[in-house]
Amino acid sequence: MENTRIVLAQRPQGEPTAADFRIESLPVPALAEGQVLVRHHFLSLDPYMRGRMSDQKSYAAPQPLDEVMIGGTVGVVEASKNAYFQAGDRVLGMGGWQEYAVVDASQRGVLQKLDARLPLSVYLGAVGMPGVTAWYGLTEIIAPVPGHTVAVSAATGAVGSVVGQLAKRRGARVVGIAGGPEKCAYATEVLGFDACLDHRALRSPKELGAALAAAAPSGIDGYFDNVGGGVLDAVMANANAFARIAVCGMIANYNGAPVPMANPQLILSSRLTLRGFIVSEHREAWPKALAELSQLAAEGQLAIRESVAQGIRSAPRAFIGMLRGENFGKQLVKLID
Amino acid sequence: MENTRIVLAQRPQGEPTAADFRIESLPVPALAEGQVLVRHHFLSLDPYMRGRMSDQKSYAAPQPLDEVMIGGTVGVVEASKNAYFQAGDRVLGMGGWQEYAVVDASQRGVLQKLDARLPLSVYLGAVGMPGVTAWYGLTEIIAPVPGHTVAVSAATGAVGSVVGQLAKRRGARVVGIAGGPEKCAYATEVLGFDACLDHRALRSPKELGAALAAAAPSGIDGYFDNVGGGVLDAVMANANAFARIAVCGMIANYNGAPVPMANPQLILSSRLTLRGFIVSEHREAWPKALAELSQLAAEGQLAIRESVAQGIRSAPRAFIGMLRGENFGKQLVKLID
Repeated sequence: MENTRIVLAQRPQGEPTAADFRIESLPVPALAEGQVLVRHHFLSLDPYMRGRMSDQKSYAAPQPLDEVMIGGTVGVVEASKNAYFQAGDRVLGMGGWQEYAVVDASQRGVLQKLDARLPLSVYLGAVGMPGVTAWYGLTEIIAPVPGHTVAVSAATGAVGSVVGQLAKRRGARVVGIAGGPEKCAYATEVLGFDACLDHRALRSPKELGAALAAAAPSGIDGYFDNVGGGVLDAVMANANAFARIAVCGMIANYNGAPVPMANPQLILSSRLTLRGFIVSEHREAWPKALAELSQLAAEGQLAIRESVAQGIRSAPRAFIGMLRGENFGKQLVKLID
Repeated sequence: MENTRIVLAQRPQGEPTAADFRIESLPVPALAEGQVLVRHHFLSLDPYMRGRMSDQKSYAAPQPLDEVMIGGTVGVVEASKNAYFQAGDRVLGMGGWQEYAVVDASQRGVLQKLDARLPLSVYLGAVGMPGVTAWYGLTEIIAPVPGHTVAVSAATGAVGSVVGQLAKRRGARVVGIAGGPEKCAYATEVLGFDACLDHRALRSPKELGAALAAAAPSGIDGYFDNVGGGVLDAVMANANAFARIAVCGMIANYNGAPVPMANPQLILSSRLTLRGFIVSEHREAWPKALAELSQLAAEGQLAIRESVAQGIRSAPRAFIGMLRGENFGKQLVKLID
């Protein structure tokens, strides 16, 4: 049996290209005692992966060259030499950019069994790491109360769409920022946001700032930042006193030199709190977050949208497109036919 | 009896000049029922005053033109038509840049009686607003534990000197940043800081960053920011994961255009918290802060240094000098001979 996988061939300079990846096919090795063979159904593509591809100082070790790209996966156990797993079990793991993974499942937590109440792919999105990221930043950092206005960038993405929907459920006015009129229409019509600004039509921070002021007439009390750069600048200029900003992503910076913050003086004059976080460091929050998210998803209370690329060989192109904002909703790669 | 006072004649463009102020002498009015006449012994000069002189959006209303400049004062009651105050009482108030003030003392809190255990001027510095500012940012935002490294800029000033001394008492390693070798010698020899960097000798953020790395070999866990700009950039580059930054002052920005933050990406990659605060909005903290600070001062456990200008007419020049860092310790104007 062959396993096709994608390794990091070289570290990207700026925007990644297909040449930074290499596709390999290798035989699947035989299982040793305690191991499990998982066939991946879906691979998750997430912005954090761009950070791992660099060897700059960061919160996590860089992705090693010539090794399979890191990534979250859901799939089904094909064979098991581990007493806890059986063929047919649905599992979540960090299987990487490949069709199969042989997992030493005796390490606790490395493979998690999934119940059958939701489609497998949902555990990589709204009821997985992106959903918990949204829940943590909104609940633990922004902490909106009814009447607050919450802004969120990358508003229709895997994280942003959950941020806004949870904020609406907590009584906030929600202003999304997304790229393009289709995404904005989805944000207001399907996700239920109160307003959505198309940053592609608002080219300067000043224009975006004016549009934010109109969309948030009482000012912005909380901001879930997935992009940094000029959008963060525009939100800060419209932030109310004591506004809280959860800093979750800086896509604007992933592909090149740091983008400065235009007016840090506002941190003082508006008494802002900015807090960067990585959801994997807050394991204590996961059970509570997943309980709420899976309940909402099971009840059909959470709108979920996915962009699905077909086949492992499509992963690099889908990843590059996601960094450009070409995806619409959670970006997945489907690894079965 | 004449009262000499200083009013704001025009809003400064960039660095304030003497022409932005006007000196006036007016007769002291007769007291009405409930009023108190206070003779000021000391006027406090503080960086926040520069912000008030602008009419840009800020946390407080701008200083009105042609009215006496805002400022904290300590003095002695000369005459009283208020049952609660008597001639000879030592009092703290917001009397402004003038020799005398007629105060409607029936408004609660507008004048506070002071005990006699400390010299009057101390209630404008280490046991006053600057001291409570230091206490709040250190205790409520930075919250150091033994072994942490805390950095503080404007390290020998009214706020910074208290920040560092309190941090030492809480078991932290303290690295000061100050302007000039004399201030740095004072920080290490008198204030007891572990190290002090002279930012005038370290002209680029990169040079300052390298010096910080040497002075804080385990990285920086907390930073009390009194200046913003390149110093903040250099500290952020040396901050440990989960470091907390209390944003208290941005002197670098008061005199002109906003100074950008070089690398906000670090907020995410180092999971930093930055929080701006204004101590007057945290009245709940004052009693606890003042209790600790006055006890330490009375026991001689708090090193206090003052720069004293003589006479109300010297206030504008002393204020301009303070914004340039020419003062050494708490900047006061003495209003009695």
